[in-house]
Amino acid sequence: MNGSESSKISAIEAVAQRARDASRAMLSASTDERNAALEAVHNSLLGAKDAIVAANEADKKAARELMEKGSLSSALVKRLDLAGKKFDAMLDGVKSVASLPDPVGACSLSRKLDDGLQLFRVACPIGVICIIFESRPEAAVQIASLSIKSANAVILKGGKEAEKSNAILVETIRSALRSANVPEDAVQLVATREEVRELLDQTKYIDLIIPRGSNSLVRYISDNTKIPVMGHADGICSIYVDAKADPLKAKDIVVDAKAQYPAVCNAAETLLIHKNALETVLPVVGKGLKEANVQVLADDASKPILDAVPGLHVEASSPGDYRTEFLELRMAVKVVDSLSSAVTHINEHGSGHTDCIVTEDESSAQMFMAMVDSAGVYHNASTRFADGFRYGFGAEVGVSTHRTHARGPVGLEGLLIYKYMLKGNGHIVAPYANGEKKFKHEDTPGIKPVIDS
Amino acid sequence: MNGSESSKISAIEAVAQRARDASRAMLSASTDERNAALEAVHNSLLGAKDAIVAANEADKKAARELMEKGSLSSALVKRLDLAGKKFDAMLDGVKSVASLPDPVGACSLSRKLDDGLQLFRVACPIGVICIIFESRPEAAVQIASLSIKSANAVILKGGKEAEKSNAILVETIRSALRSANVPEDAVQLVATREEVRELLDQTKYIDLIIPRGSNSLVRYISDNTKIPVMGHADGICSIYVDAKADPLKAKDIVVDAKAQYPAVCNAAETLLIHKNALETVLPVVGKGLKEANVQVLADDASKPILDAVPGLHVEASSPGDYRTEFLELRMAVKVVDSLSSAVTHINEHGSGHTDCIVTEDESSAQMFMAMVDSAGVYHNASTRFADGFRYGFGAEVGVSTHRTHARGPVGLEGLLIYKYMLKGNGHIVAPYANGEKKFKHEDTPGIKPVIDS
Repeated sequence: MNGSESSKISAIEAVAQRARDASRAMLSASTDERNAALEAVHNSLLGAKDAIVAANEADKKAARELMEKGSLSSALVKRLDLAGKKFDAMLDGVKSVASLPDPVGACSLSRKLDDGLQLFRVACPIGVICIIFESRPEAAVQIASLSIKSANAVILKGGKEAEKSNAILVETIRSALRSANVPEDAVQLVATREEVRELLDQTKYIDLIIPRGSNSLVRYISDNTKIPVMGHADGICSIYVDAKADPLKAKDIVVDAKAQYPAVCNAAETLLIHKNALETVLPVVGKGLKEANVQVLADDASKPILDAVPGLHVEASSPGDYRTEFLELRMAVKVVDSLSSAVTHINEHGSGHTDCIVTEDESSAQMFMAMVDSAGVYHNASTRFADGFRYGFGAEVGVSTHRTHARGPVGLEGLLIYKYMLKGNGHIVAPYANGEKKFKHEDTPGIKPVIDS
Repeated sequence: MNGSESSKISAIEAVAQRARDASRAMLSASTDERNAALEAVHNSLLGAKDAIVAANEADKKAARELMEKGSLSSALVKRLDLAGKKFDAMLDGVKSVASLPDPVGACSLSRKLDDGLQLFRVACPIGVICIIFESRPEAAVQIASLSIKSANAVILKGGKEAEKSNAILVETIRSALRSANVPEDAVQLVATREEVRELLDQTKYIDLIIPRGSNSLVRYISDNTKIPVMGHADGICSIYVDAKADPLKAKDIVVDAKAQYPAVCNAAETLLIHKNALETVLPVVGKGLKEANVQVLADDASKPILDAVPGLHVEASSPGDYRTEFLELRMAVKVVDSLSSAVTHINEHGSGHTDCIVTEDESSAQMFMAMVDSAGVYHNASTRFADGFRYGFGAEVGVSTHRTHARGPVGLEGLLIYKYMLKGNGHIVAPYANGEKKFKHEDTPGIKPVIDS
């Protein structure tokens, strides 16, 4: 809350320090104040629509020029767009975050340690979050909204291609925060890649980094910081078609998981098939893949069956194909001898994201779901369901394949931790340590903390 | 689950790989199997008592020789001891962990996404935990018990001084696991400091490192690994005595927090006192500190008052004293102008462990508890309560000052994460993506997952 040491620090360290100060100030922002700030953000963005669309147009123009030179993909240019329906959806997103229940202050433990000595565990913001995202500028608004809702301070680093769009979006959000009496430094923007490198060193001020983007971005971040990172690099999802799979369910699920939107992390990359389903189920699945224009990379055992599917593009697979995130209409196929082999394959080759078994046998499904060590384990459902909105979280901060803090699609609660509040009346430890007094340790779910805000 | 790539790997990488394989195998160990394994561990340790006490005697003899040469403290030698009551307490600890409810499989979310499409979030082990601890050999048994209970695999690194004790304890535990049909590699021991360095690189196999020991150990670990670390380096806890503090409660709490056991992380190091309590409350607290043989380091405003306390050892403080974890009978004292200054001081100088306000004013207490950004925020209770056993967790894996995963005293649940289980009946995403179908997102707390184990 003071800047007395700020004379000798770098610009980026100053950004991080201001974020920490803002995060501390956010601790006193009530539910109503944070929701009012989101309302102000919504209205300011609406009021600045023309200027935002114009800045976005400039980004798009520059991007189209790069595309014509071949140095930017058309998909990326498309993702830059903020006009029309996308603008409205972005504003709706702010309202929808405002309408979510306040996650801050939720009490997950209420326990009487002894007479007059009451313990509570209460949800609170993590503090300072740094989110590094690529290209889509509406992500800046979504993330800022989630951060304000959860009383965190956020440092945003967007893609270079969306620089002008991000700049005006964040400036509009900050002006709204000023008007709403919430610290504007609760949302800050950092522009260049060089600045990211320096942000990664701010262990004192940044509590969590969430990279949202390419595999290489996530790896770069993870390899270059001591700050906890939440996210996922790979999404190598598998579908295991069991001996007792229903052929039509198998076909529908494999085609949906592979082809409904292949460029995303929850799309399936590998098809494992039980040897006893090879002649009964695989031809049906192969026909579906052909209709969806999927090319297959087949092992020796599955190749003859797939070769017999009219029109299906089949190549022989190599071992590396089973560790590859294709993100396009290609799928590696492998025959396994048993459920247990399928589990072993997935645990060794997958990325711990989402894996599915297709079977009519309930006990096989239970075994698969217990033994596959992934964030999502599915039975007879497409891996594409692995998404915060589809899970009903209202918003998503990312998908985590880590095994601490949060796993799988992460909603608002991924931006929260808790603190313990203990209320006594002069209680000291000495009489408990020497045996004079004993703890009662009675859970008291009916007793809630009084939280000042 | 195979060792095909093990020919080219180091001994430590092989340890880590075996731990990963064991953690996967633990996924199929039922509640009863894990509790039976703990029973077997208890019985084996009891059966091996003479050999364990003999090995411990050898460690103690070597330590006493080092102590006589002045290269080991007597406190450390004392902490090595495993005989008598300590042995019995160690065995009781195993039984008490066995009697805790099974944390694995607990369902924290049950939601109907649509007809026939049911989502569950189910607690599961993190996987492979590495715990690095110092001197006290019974910690090996406690940690191994918690790890077995939570279906994790653990790699233990104990202190050099307890080498023989740790070796026989872990070998006894492993033989019990073999007899109980739980993979023995779920508990492994690593002996040397050089091996620790290599363990810190095993990002592929180790999911979480928990250092339990000195500040320098924790810093070394945190500075030298990309694996998530849970724990705390410093425990700089403060007591803020408010303008409306009850003098006797203030005295009791300050003395207990500082002097009841000064060598631990939840002991208080700093006393902040409101200027209006300077003449009324501080003399009473000072008298208590004198009786407890505490030396004080006072700022200019508090020094005259403390100097007037008969027999109290008072020195002038320097700024560094307010960032120091004394771990002995010394305490820094500072006068503040307001509650808000106290909060700012704590957030800037403290370590986010546990801080307390002493006041009779409820709204000041609420403000303090909301604004102090620490794992524990206390009102009229000694900071020494910050402990997993005192919170009623039955067991403690450590105290975390991090802001992700787990914060404050961490019980068994700190060794758990969750996975999402989705049960469908051939459900695919396409009709939801094109608007044909809509999600229902109804919470269904009565519907529980069937878990195979």
